Amino acid sequence: MTPTLAELGEEELLKRLARFAPPGQLDDDTACLGSDARPLLVNTDVLVDGIHFSDTTTAAVDVGWRAVAANLSDLAASGAVSIDGITVALVAPGTTPWSWVEGVYDGINAALEKHGGTLLGGDCSSGSSRLLSVTALGRLGPLRLLRNAAQPGDVLISSGPHGLSRLGLALLQKEPLVQTNSLSAELQDQAISQHQRPRPRLDALNGLLACKPAELSWRAGGTDSSDGLLAAVQGLCSSSGTGAQLDRSHLPRPQEWPHGDLWDRWCLAGGEDFELVFSIPPAWADALETTLAGCRRFGQITDKTGSIVWSDDKKPVLDGGFDHFASS
Amino acid sequence: MTPTLAELGEEELLKRLARFAPPGQLDDDTACLGSDARPLLVNTDVLVDGIHFSDTTTAAVDVGWRAVAANLSDLAASGAVSIDGITVALVAPGTTPWSWVEGVYDGINAALEKHGGTLLGGDCSSGSSRLLSVTALGRLGPLRLLRNAAQPGDVLISSGPHGLSRLGLALLQKEPLVQTNSLSAELQDQAISQHQRPRPRLDALNGLLACKPAELSWRAGGTDSSDGLLAAVQGLCSSSGTGAQLDRSHLPRPQEWPHGDLWDRWCLAGGEDFELVFSIPPAWADALETTLAGCRRFGQITDKTGSIVWSDDKKPVLDGGFDHFASS
Repeated sequence: MTPTLAELGEEELLKRLARFAPPGQLDDDTACLGSDARPLLVNTDVLVDGIHFSDTTTAAVDVGWRAVAANLSDLAASGAVSIDGITVALVAPGTTPWSWVEGVYDGINAALEKHGGTLLGGDCSSGSSRLLSVTALGRLGPLRLLRNAAQPGDVLISSGPHGLSRLGLALLQKEPLVQTNSLSAELQDQAISQHQRPRPRLDALNGLLACKPAELSWRAGGTDSSDGLLAAVQGLCSSSGTGAQLDRSHLPRPQEWPHGDLWDRWCLAGGEDFELVFSIPPAWADALETTLAGCRRFGQITDKTGSIVWSDDKKPVLDGGFDHFASS
Repeated sequence: MTPTLAELGEEELLKRLARFAPPGQLDDDTACLGSDARPLLVNTDVLVDGIHFSDTTTAAVDVGWRAVAANLSDLAASGAVSIDGITVALVAPGTTPWSWVEGVYDGINAALEKHGGTLLGGDCSSGSSRLLSVTALGRLGPLRLLRNAAQPGDVLISSGPHGLSRLGLALLQKEPLVQTNSLSAELQDQAISQHQRPRPRLDALNGLLACKPAELSWRAGGTDSSDGLLAAVQGLCSSSGTGAQLDRSHLPRPQEWPHGDLWDRWCLAGGEDFELVFSIPPAWADALETTLAGCRRFGQITDKTGSIVWSDDKKPVLDGGFDHFASS
């Protein structure tokens, strides 16, 4: 039997957690990062049981993986070319089995091993429900990607398809809306994997950096699509004071994606695909399309502040956002 | 009437929170810190409603202040001479009134204005109970204070008295143990203030750095006493493989502190005084006593691994630690 956190006690819990970090790393409350010439990027994300994950859809190891992936995705969307590491605040009731915590930290380390960085430190406490608050630190490369740096005439281009994570969730929750017999086994596997093990697209950022035409300056709008593709476009437009036209026939739908409103809604607003969405000059977009396999051009930035419309009929693309507070 | 978080919605909440940070600071998910030659220190602390604070003893503004103070205290105890800033993850039920959140961030900014640093970023989510997870970033000075750097022969010296925060809590909770009529109004005020508005002792670190005798190297053991004075000594001893002798007659009791077992226990294990505890060579301790008003020499480090005893009768000093998980 795995012990509960109350049975372990705080001292033993901290000892066990220290095994997930480099030797001696968690001996002190504070982690030390060697300095270098490059500016530091910092990001904090919180994952709460029942909101961002649940036992029915997310194994402990996937909770840890997703917590890291969500944070590194934000760093990639800001221009981080290397990851220093993360701190983790873990809150859980005393009745939580140790095996769950161990699974979470196994997932954290698996994601860090894959994408770089180490567990730098953290804190833990009991509390009424389980949650993780992760702060990630990385180093900026030559381009600071900003939400407010989109300009009219830019191409909107995403690092990959959207909607898979939402489909994966639907499959895991056995939502009756989804006729699984019409979906290939490959698409289903891909969707579940995208939901449980999203990849932060540090590779896509590197592709963008590698292919910038020499005549262009280091200016690009960018964000990740953790809240959905449309929310990413809205974020770029509202921060930059621009509008956008989306190309209905070139939405970044996954391969073999069914036709229909539900499926387009999931592509636009399903969320949690953790792709990058760039706003870049057409020449840079051309170069990116030849550099980054799977990237998808789906619209352009306009000077019509706050107006996000379809390019064919100029009708508004509706908001499909998700509000973390409204339902609680 | 102040709106609840559910009434505000996430977008409006984020807008309101952005007013607590420098203009534009929270526009992107990731904060950027300019780089300089000095290594970076990182610390994460989590504060949970019902465990680290409660409405009956801690106003919202004090919750915010304490969250910052606890983090900066850890940075000071590691050798940070300047503070870059903090990220804040806020979790609260949708029924939480906005005025509480506003109070917390007012307290956060009051502490940052006093001690340095800005609100760099963060995240928020609904959740079943209120909590704050704060990550603080600061720059290391010439001395990296470590728990494992204590050496036999070192003097144990604290930056100030211990027990006030615990007395403050007792007064706020009207615990029957405390005979308030025997305590001066000044001591009571000081205790409540220490509980609600603890100061991170960055000044004490600066005092330590300023007075190092030239013939000594930059080597000192150090930690803060957030978990209590005895826990700080235990942390130094277990990380350094040493023991300690404490001088019963020179415990760092507050002025006008009553005599008795309860009061000595609060001095040793009351916790949350957020003073610094140093393990330094005697010549450095002599210099510190003339530099830092209120610092208190209370024992020495020995080579008897794990043995923490009174210097007069060599009897063990009992553990009065507090386990965050055991009671939940």
